[in-house]
Amino acid sequence: MSTYKAPIRDMQFVLRDLLNIEKHYQTLPDCDEVNQDLIDSILGEASKFSENIVAPLYAVGDEVGCQRQEDGEVKTPPGFKEAYAQYVEAGWPSLDQPARYGGQDLPMSIGTPIREMNGTANWSWAMYPGLSQGAMETIDAHGSEEQKAIFMEPLVSGQWTGTMCLTEAHCGTDLGLLKTKAEPAADGTYRLTGSKIFISSGEHDMAENIVHIVLARLPDSPPGTKGISLFIVPKFIPNEDGSIGKRNQVVCGVLERKMGIHGNATAQLNFDGATGYLIGEVNKGLNYMFTFMNFARLGTGLQGLAHSELAFQKSLAYTRDRLQMRSLSGPKNPDGPADPIIVHADVRRMLLTQKSFAEGGRALIYYASTLGDILTKSDDPEARKMADEVLSFLTPIIKAFLTETGFESANLGLQCFGGHGYINEWGVEQNVRDARISMLYEGTTGIQALDLLGRKVLGTKGKALKMMTGFILDFCKDARSTREIRPYLKTIVKLTKQWKSLTRKIGFAAMRNRDAVGAASVDYIMFSGYLLLAVCWAASARAAHYRLSKGTNEAAFYEAKIQTAEFYFAKILPRTTSLYETMSTGPDTLMKMDADAFMF
Amino acid sequence: MSTYKAPIRDMQFVLRDLLNIEKHYQTLPDCDEVNQDLIDSILGEASKFSENIVAPLYAVGDEVGCQRQEDGEVKTPPGFKEAYAQYVEAGWPSLDQPARYGGQDLPMSIGTPIREMNGTANWSWAMYPGLSQGAMETIDAHGSEEQKAIFMEPLVSGQWTGTMCLTEAHCGTDLGLLKTKAEPAADGTYRLTGSKIFISSGEHDMAENIVHIVLARLPDSPPGTKGISLFIVPKFIPNEDGSIGKRNQVVCGVLERKMGIHGNATAQLNFDGATGYLIGEVNKGLNYMFTFMNFARLGTGLQGLAHSELAFQKSLAYTRDRLQMRSLSGPKNPDGPADPIIVHADVRRMLLTQKSFAEGGRALIYYASTLGDILTKSDDPEARKMADEVLSFLTPIIKAFLTETGFESANLGLQCFGGHGYINEWGVEQNVRDARISMLYEGTTGIQALDLLGRKVLGTKGKALKMMTGFILDFCKDARSTREIRPYLKTIVKLTKQWKSLTRKIGFAAMRNRDAVGAASVDYIMFSGYLLLAVCWAASARAAHYRLSKGTNEAAFYEAKIQTAEFYFAKILPRTTSLYETMSTGPDTLMKMDADAFMF
Repeated sequence: MSTYKAPIRDMQFVLRDLLNIEKHYQTLPDCDEVNQDLIDSILGEASKFSENIVAPLYAVGDEVGCQRQEDGEVKTPPGFKEAYAQYVEAGWPSLDQPARYGGQDLPMSIGTPIREMNGTANWSWAMYPGLSQGAMETIDAHGSEEQKAIFMEPLVSGQWTGTMCLTEAHCGTDLGLLKTKAEPAADGTYRLTGSKIFISSGEHDMAENIVHIVLARLPDSPPGTKGISLFIVPKFIPNEDGSIGKRNQVVCGVLERKMGIHGNATAQLNFDGATGYLIGEVNKGLNYMFTFMNFARLGTGLQGLAHSELAFQKSLAYTRDRLQMRSLSGPKNPDGPADPIIVHADVRRMLLTQKSFAEGGRALIYYASTLGDILTKSDDPEARKMADEVLSFLTPIIKAFLTETGFESANLGLQCFGGHGYINEWGVEQNVRDARISMLYEGTTGIQALDLLGRKVLGTKGKALKMMTGFILDFCKDARSTREIRPYLKTIVKLTKQWKSLTRKIGFAAMRNRDAVGAASVDYIMFSGYLLLAVCWAASARAAHYRLSKGTNEAAFYEAKIQTAEFYFAKILPRTTSLYETMSTGPDTLMKMDADAFMF
Repeated sequence: MSTYKAPIRDMQFVLRDLLNIEKHYQTLPDCDEVNQDLIDSILGEASKFSENIVAPLYAVGDEVGCQRQEDGEVKTPPGFKEAYAQYVEAGWPSLDQPARYGGQDLPMSIGTPIREMNGTANWSWAMYPGLSQGAMETIDAHGSEEQKAIFMEPLVSGQWTGTMCLTEAHCGTDLGLLKTKAEPAADGTYRLTGSKIFISSGEHDMAENIVHIVLARLPDSPPGTKGISLFIVPKFIPNEDGSIGKRNQVVCGVLERKMGIHGNATAQLNFDGATGYLIGEVNKGLNYMFTFMNFARLGTGLQGLAHSELAFQKSLAYTRDRLQMRSLSGPKNPDGPADPIIVHADVRRMLLTQKSFAEGGRALIYYASTLGDILTKSDDPEARKMADEVLSFLTPIIKAFLTETGFESANLGLQCFGGHGYINEWGVEQNVRDARISMLYEGTTGIQALDLLGRKVLGTKGKALKMMTGFILDFCKDARSTREIRPYLKTIVKLTKQWKSLTRKIGFAAMRNRDAVGAASVDYIMFSGYLLLAVCWAASARAAHYRLSKGTNEAAFYEAKIQTAEFYFAKILPRTTSLYETMSTGPDTLMKMDADAFMF
């Protein structure tokens, strides 16, 4: 059975050849010492951890899962706790956290490859430290000095973990309907009562405390989204010296039985007069929430990439090993009983699809991380503003597109294994089940699509789109000097024009009928994703041609990049043609049928 | 939680309005008394059985699964055995089996809706009687009179069930590699030794005997596919009077732990000198196998339809019930806290996709069943030959296309439920897991695609395709009198021309490079499927317009048909455009990369 191997060489390619990362760090305060050597040594250490400590827990996490005890405490799968202790011990949680909380202050774009490694090795495990991210960002951005003093250091060090408590049984997308109550107490704190569901990493035995970030409603708050406030509700109430105090009234009532990510505890949490601390101002909870929502969405995009990468690695190992039938163009392994199935064109189609999604997605998400660096570290307000606008445009695309393609890759992985893929032991059907959640949580694909088309594109009257298409056309102009990729650039320019004209068309249609937005939105976000990935592949091919032209002892590596780009433009990007067609047919065929008539 | 409701009205529409089934039966010997009243009463009885007896075992089959006992016997999930006893008691197994074995001699096209009902209600359960089909067809077609006398009656009555034992650990697709040995014994029987895997319904407690149809190799047979023979290996060796005799040496060694269809026992069977009876002639096993392979592939196509239908039913119930957000075009449920999510265009896109696959797929597969009627019952050799040719062309398309779209529907179903869909209790994630096997067993999608393009299309030098496109163009000519569907017909004619020109193009390319076939094959089979479904939808729209023009008290039913057809042509059929593009780019981008270079 194949195990995970961190794709360090490709990570280096993206960071160095595509993103020119050293130069990028030189523009950021206190980052000019972050050079390729330092990055390489961090990637090396992290790869050992993910391969040797996290990956071996992949199967046991699925098989054993999490167990709720009678008192509501939760036992994580064998080995999870010990691996997390080693993770904390080695200082990984604080890698790209601010120095003021004891962090190592490295840029986010260095944390991203590390999160990718652990996430690909074992997504369920990686979600425990992953969820802390949102809690830290929220407290750092909106918490009081006192709250920061108490909660940030143990979160940054990884001694404590965090969660995000949004969803209730009757509302996920529509948070305006939420019912959890927060009543003010005499001491300035609040008492929270209600029930939250689907809380990832919601209860576990891996850290000594869990910091829940909870949306709730004050008794006198207005209904709907304008009456929601945000609270810190720790599992154990910290004493003034920061030590662990008494158990708070927040208890795991149920662990969900679910399709995948069995190793992560998806908890129903019951708040029974639990002590909570208001974050920021009353009734501004939903605004604050969007701080961590955006980062959580990028994190879920990373999950999509992780499933593509894992599927590719497992499929490649199997299809090179499995002997079955002969190549249509004559035996390739004449001395063996049959050829390895990688000789077949259709098997290669599946492998290259996975490979192009994994490597292209890596380029896209690492690029987004450099915007995150600027947003969190730059002292240039103009640069920060620009990074914010681009990142907020890219976020729903990264979330939706990389998770949809991650699921596709995972499924192709199962397909490469034939009937064997359906059996638990190979871990490829687990990859499908684990991947399936990514299109649902942190906002479904449909919700991302509305966010992109409704809010980010039409809501800015096309301003954000214009900026994005401007970048793309600038890239195309610049890249023309690499003669070999001109056909790609021509295609990209054509699609960029289609993107704009489609947007205008949908915008006009939406003036008459708002349903035109929802009717086109998912096709639109996928179209956008395929186009952005085409830009990533054109850039990758350009970089590869450049290296080859300069002479290199890694010619095979760079040629494989060029061949994968060729595949992407020939076999994947044409999907945009159909999406363009279906979007052009408007909303009528979707809206005409009466709800009662569906049942016929 | 929604439960299954048999779509009788739509079944009637397909049988009556599309297939003119009474007239069809009048062309078959001894079928002229099969009229709509009889069909309706059979559908009514069968629907009760599937809804009340089979559907309630859907969840328990998944949760409890099958349990192998220490002695190798297998306990099926609670209730499975009792439901099967009722099924046999009511005479369902013999419905469309020949009278000479005690069957009721009804045509196959009446059995198909019944199998659809039970399969949609609970695919894992339906596989137990489903697998008997292949055993019966094989013995009936190729067995000796003595074998028929012993095995057919108890199989037809359902007292015994059957299996197909093909796959071994090292070979699934490539059966030429199989190793199971059959050594002649002095009494004219054989002793089989070896191990078979992935045997569906391979061991269970539902019937008193299990009749395994087993591929094995004689000691002196040539290697490869030309040295394979076919055997009957019963679990209990029947006495001469047909009663159950001594236990044969075929034992379940392992039950596979797998992604879905937990209710069905996927057995590894160990043959340890088991007594077997040769079917037909030595070394012709693979030819005989194709008899039941073809029917098994149609059965798997039916599984795809079942998952589309189940996904649609569950999604429709949930999206009409779940209140979340407001319609983009203003509140539709102003007195409630939010609108039901079926108001959203994107949710309707998902529902209509499922609906168009389920109903269109039903039309396609019921049509194929009428060809099966002709093949098994007609006394006109010309008609039988024609039916055989068309059915053999359609079979890989039905298998691959309906299972791929069934899986898509199942996934959209999960998506309609949002995060709740990921939780076991709703049964929609089970539908995804159960559906996933259908693209693997009985030949993967890739294998169906090679069968279609390599064997059925190019292997007949385009003869079969020409016949098929001839039918389609005749239909279009004939249907022009229905003015409202002319735009559809225009599209169908255009796509039919593309289908032909693509085929020529691939055929020419394949003369230079055989990999051109494998490179295009999966896109080709999907293109073919979308086109055939378009014909089904055009025919459905025509029938609906006809009924409406004649006046009907079911106008809403027929209008929904027309609206679903409109949706299909606007939002699904354009997928052919991208497939056309990707096929046109040929095999080079798939074949260029060296196998070693993938790992970069």
